[in-house]
Amino acid sequence: MNNEEFEAAGQQMLKYVIDYHKKIRERRVLPDVKPGFMRKLLPDHAPQTPEKWDQVYKDIERVVMPGVTHWHHPHFYAYFPTANSYPALLADILSDTIACIGFTWASCPSCTELEVIVMDWLAKVLDLPERFLSTSPGFGGGVIQGTASEATLVAVLSARTKFLNRIKEKNPGMEDGVALTKLIAYTSRQSHSSVERAYMIALVKYRILETDEKQSLRGDTLKKAIDEDRAKGLTPFFICATLGTTSSCAFDNCKEIGLVSEQEDIWMHIDAAYAGSSFICPEYRPLLDGVEHADSFNFNPHKWMQVTFDCSTMWVKNSKEISQAFSVEPVYLKHENEGHMPDYRHWHVPLGRRFRSLKLWFVLRLFGVKGLQDIIREDIKLAHKFEDYIRKDPRFEIFGEVIMALVCFRLKGSNEINEKLIKNINDDGRIHMVPSNVDGTFFLRLSVCTTRTKNHDIDFAWKVVSELADNLLKTNN
Amino acid sequence: MNNEEFEAAGQQMLKYVIDYHKKIRERRVLPDVKPGFMRKLLPDHAPQTPEKWDQVYKDIERVVMPGVTHWHHPHFYAYFPTANSYPALLADILSDTIACIGFTWASCPSCTELEVIVMDWLAKVLDLPERFLSTSPGFGGGVIQGTASEATLVAVLSARTKFLNRIKEKNPGMEDGVALTKLIAYTSRQSHSSVERAYMIALVKYRILETDEKQSLRGDTLKKAIDEDRAKGLTPFFICATLGTTSSCAFDNCKEIGLVSEQEDIWMHIDAAYAGSSFICPEYRPLLDGVEHADSFNFNPHKWMQVTFDCSTMWVKNSKEISQAFSVEPVYLKHENEGHMPDYRHWHVPLGRRFRSLKLWFVLRLFGVKGLQDIIREDIKLAHKFEDYIRKDPRFEIFGEVIMALVCFRLKGSNEINEKLIKNINDDGRIHMVPSNVDGTFFLRLSVCTTRTKNHDIDFAWKVVSELADNLLKTNN
Repeated sequence: MNNEEFEAAGQQMLKYVIDYHKKIRERRVLPDVKPGFMRKLLPDHAPQTPEKWDQVYKDIERVVMPGVTHWHHPHFYAYFPTANSYPALLADILSDTIACIGFTWASCPSCTELEVIVMDWLAKVLDLPERFLSTSPGFGGGVIQGTASEATLVAVLSARTKFLNRIKEKNPGMEDGVALTKLIAYTSRQSHSSVERAYMIALVKYRILETDEKQSLRGDTLKKAIDEDRAKGLTPFFICATLGTTSSCAFDNCKEIGLVSEQEDIWMHIDAAYAGSSFICPEYRPLLDGVEHADSFNFNPHKWMQVTFDCSTMWVKNSKEISQAFSVEPVYLKHENEGHMPDYRHWHVPLGRRFRSLKLWFVLRLFGVKGLQDIIREDIKLAHKFEDYIRKDPRFEIFGEVIMALVCFRLKGSNEINEKLIKNINDDGRIHMVPSNVDGTFFLRLSVCTTRTKNHDIDFAWKVVSELADNLLKTNN
Repeated sequence: MNNEEFEAAGQQMLKYVIDYHKKIRERRVLPDVKPGFMRKLLPDHAPQTPEKWDQVYKDIERVVMPGVTHWHHPHFYAYFPTANSYPALLADILSDTIACIGFTWASCPSCTELEVIVMDWLAKVLDLPERFLSTSPGFGGGVIQGTASEATLVAVLSARTKFLNRIKEKNPGMEDGVALTKLIAYTSRQSHSSVERAYMIALVKYRILETDEKQSLRGDTLKKAIDEDRAKGLTPFFICATLGTTSSCAFDNCKEIGLVSEQEDIWMHIDAAYAGSSFICPEYRPLLDGVEHADSFNFNPHKWMQVTFDCSTMWVKNSKEISQAFSVEPVYLKHENEGHMPDYRHWHVPLGRRFRSLKLWFVLRLFGVKGLQDIIREDIKLAHKFEDYIRKDPRFEIFGEVIMALVCFRLKGSNEINEKLIKNINDDGRIHMVPSNVDGTFFLRLSVCTTRTKNHDIDFAWKVVSELADNLLKTNN
């Protein structure tokens, strides 16, 4: 594909992008396909000789679109939002063009330095404690990870290294595996599955702690667990607190947990994957109080802050503790300027990394902090609008509290009837939601996911839910 | 940014992309900046209100480009190639637009199904054994990982789970950590640093094995290590073999290693991150012989097969063994069609995933297999051209063998003189290379990295190397 062909194809793609968003309401939010649908549409071998761009372009609609779940459809209310913005797309074009692999400072100085600077910018927008900034006297700083799962894993592995070393210092000659049996980590029953997965990968013991009536993990619960485990001769070393759980957007009490973590000298990681974006609004920032006690903090601008996946921002107070867990030093990666700027390869699991700070930079500049705040506030307003509908209908009840742009609700009554309702909603296909289950209570989740979702869409969503509930209750009676 | 603004900005970016590539020779391949250069060029806070696109656009040249190492400059010969192609860029525009998170089949059926199909296509191009295909009777199949580091880690963790379970079955009540002390993994001294890092993350014992005179790990070396370790009561469980090492592009003997692995019943993973792309050419495919004995195989189309980072393709014979290591099952991710198609979230460390198969699909179709083979062959031809220059100059010697598009060479004599030579080359700045060191021998690596590198560039690279060697030897005498 030469320059002229690329320019023509690129222009066609730009128009396609605009058109896709303009006419997305004409598409079915959930595709109507069965597993295996695509194999019939494609040959079973790659072509030997180049195909024409037009053939490939036509296959976007013929092959791909019939099986797309449209996450940016205004009627998509499933999971949590994932960002999709023009500024991020433009930045990705630039990232794909420079196409550097920024594993060390030397491999592309701009890739590292822009990340350091933009992570400081964002830390200031969030009013993070000074110690998380690269400009602080210590070893604080931010790094862009691919996903919150990876950020949690990095935190767990870093803490594991730190505490294994302590145990081994006290017990010279003890094997890693044996020392490992002494460590124990904690999280709440409501934390994301990736926390448990990180513990499984680290192969550490862990305890799933109970929450209070608001699905919030409290300091005394953690303290009690730590005391019990110390009495058994174990070494508590890690707590992952969640701000905005996936199931119901509950908030752990980070102030209490932070104090306990500090007193007990364990690593505290805060996973605010979804809700973290809201902390750019001063009125939601108090939800992050307690972060001053944390060793690491993470949220996903690729969820609710307009930066297209993947951009999971993580800050640590002491980056030396991160790099200790990952450091290997081959000759071909050494360079003259080591130590002056971070070599981000020591901050995460992969070696290679894209120039992802570009999209965070473009988004912050082209929306402005105020523009991003407006979107958060509007989405939360829409969630409350849906909440009002639910509260006014005596057949329904709200589960938990509506704090962010997620409404958890259910028909009063059995789990079974709610399981039927969600199935009917998704079979109907006009809107899309997923359910969840907290301590045996099954409920539906309406998550405001796109900037295209407006007041009338919420009216429509309620209309669909209410109508399908009518039908269901009629059939059931 | 509205549709019209986006279209205008997008067109500007398309022109920028073309212009960047057209005029890349006018830029210095290695930037002339010191750590911290960028902070002076940017404000220390994000803007409150949106900036104009023009301001952001201007900053690409003002702020970013001065610190870019141009990996796609024809005179870039460092590390290994990283891909950069128009078809991949167009696919990324589409991926950013659909912007789905394909963690389950239901979350975007096309995202999963295209990956399954295109990974089968590529498996056939590589002539992989049937058992690695999704269409085979077993549980084989391919998955796109972010990097080879992650693929290796996934293989190690999967094998760890499998063998820990075996040990614990024989020793009911044994703790994971204690069972872990029994496991031992292997790799060669020449394997990539990410292998050692994967073992560190998995916290398993490992042995770094010696290679033969061609930096190739041989079957008898592995067999001897296994025998010794079994005699000590350990359980050998994993070998990572490398096809195309980073230091010198050496090839482990996978036929021998495969036979030993099969006899000894340990997991064999093949890391062919760089060289794997060459196996699409029938004349290089024999280098992959032995893969029939492997449990998992990985290479990076984002290196040498024109798919822009990140696209690291991994195949496994038994995907059940992969998912066992990662499986956690929250309600909000369950869906009706589980089991019919892979839920790729069980195949890797992160939960979220981009629609990356699009770029592999676009590249395979718009280059065609033949087009991709041509690029590999041309790059290898250019490497041999540089090799000829070296061999004809009695001051120099080749280190190892030139098999792919990497030439390892050195001035005959001390390491110190070669350390000076590489420093002078990179300070000079007309071309960029990195050195390496194998068993105490320090050498330079010329890696043909871009499709824009032509015959006359190799002449030029030789001119620079030869001239700087002249100067150095003159000064030294």
